[in-house]
Amino acid sequence: MASLILHEDPVSGNCYKIRLTASLLSVPLERRLYNILKGETRTPDFLAKVSPYGRIPVLQVGDAALLPESNAACHYIAEAYQSSCNLIPADLLQRAQMLQWMFFEQNQHEVNIATLRFWLSIIGEDNLTAGQRSQIAGKREGGRAALTYMNEHLAKAEGGWFVGGRLTLADICLFAYTHVADEGGFDLNEWPHVQTWCKKLAAHSGFVAM
Amino acid sequence: MASLILHEDPVSGNCYKIRLTASLLSVPLERRLYNILKGETRTPDFLAKVSPYGRIPVLQVGDAALLPESNAACHYIAEAYQSSCNLIPADLLQRAQMLQWMFFEQNQHEVNIATLRFWLSIIGEDNLTAGQRSQIAGKREGGRAALTYMNEHLAKAEGGWFVGGRLTLADICLFAYTHVADEGGFDLNEWPHVQTWCKKLAAHSGFVAM
Repeated sequence: MASLILHEDPVSGNCYKIRLTASLLSVPLERRLYNILKGETRTPDFLAKVSPYGRIPVLQVGDAALLPESNAACHYIAEAYQSSCNLIPADLLQRAQMLQWMFFEQNQHEVNIATLRFWLSIIGEDNLTAGQRSQIAGKREGGRAALTYMNEHLAKAEGGWFVGGRLTLADICLFAYTHVADEGGFDLNEWPHVQTWCKKLAAHSGFVAM
Repeated sequence: MASLILHEDPVSGNCYKIRLTASLLSVPLERRLYNILKGETRTPDFLAKVSPYGRIPVLQVGDAALLPESNAACHYIAEAYQSSCNLIPADLLQRAQMLQWMFFEQNQHEVNIATLRFWLSIIGEDNLTAGQRSQIAGKREGGRAALTYMNEHLAKAEGGWFVGGRLTLADICLFAYTHVADEGGFDLNEWPHVQTWCKKLAAHSGFVAM
């Protein structure tokens, strides 16, 4: 198997997903750290060698292949290193349902909850632009709708996992920013099934904390 | 194979992706139409029977299974009905690269380009709220960055397709809102490789227009 190098910033939940996937599958992962706030993913060297788009995470596979997009990197690792802890369902419909939650995460969860966490806890509310400030209410509403949808699904989900009664990439990708949603101003006590599911994942064999 | 029913609004690019995937694979798809602007996806009946989240598209597989999220629905159809026109690469890394562009589409393309198209050409700029209006500049910048990233990738992409030198779901999912980006105020003349790629896809055997 090709060696894996993760280009990441440890404050990023998108980067953490990949470390969590690798940890659950006992896959070795070399880490290269960058500080987003110091502009370390916008240097000419980073843009030339890691990503012309200036974003992390990027999963480097072997010497040459560079794979951006956190959920795609998790999928690559889970497919490449299937083991006793298989994170992708064998069933066709369940596999699509896993992807459904992963796309939901990128389209309706991360853009609201991760962004609010970044703005409020990492940049700091006082340092936001007027344009960012004007989006807080909309992102609060979008994040609440996403957590409510997850909570309703988990209330009746088999085994308390998102898909097929067992841990899959859907849980891992949604966990990354959900379990730190309080840093974006969301109180998980409002969504008890989400809270129970977070505890269940954190107790899973092979779990690694953010 | 289970019958497929697409719950959709024909103005939605997310719904169109699924019709395009089915058309390219010659898979029969029954259509059920709803008008988002008339609130037809928020009725008690829709919320109870199609999606508690009130969103479309939803792909109904057989009698019971309901699959939201456009890119997951495309993936389901392509996996279930692989044929002479295989839209998912057999190679592990290329499969991850296909997913990379599909996640990019939902996280950085659709949220900017599709939203501006919806606001400017469907709702109409005069009918926007102050909150929506304040986001136009940011979404314009995000959409431009996404199109520039695509253009640079296509400039050196094998065969002029996003992944592996042939048509995959990455192309289909990105095409849906790119080819109507002018309705969101983007002039594709600025991104000539994107324009060439749009024409190439529209000329592909099995193509169906939006």
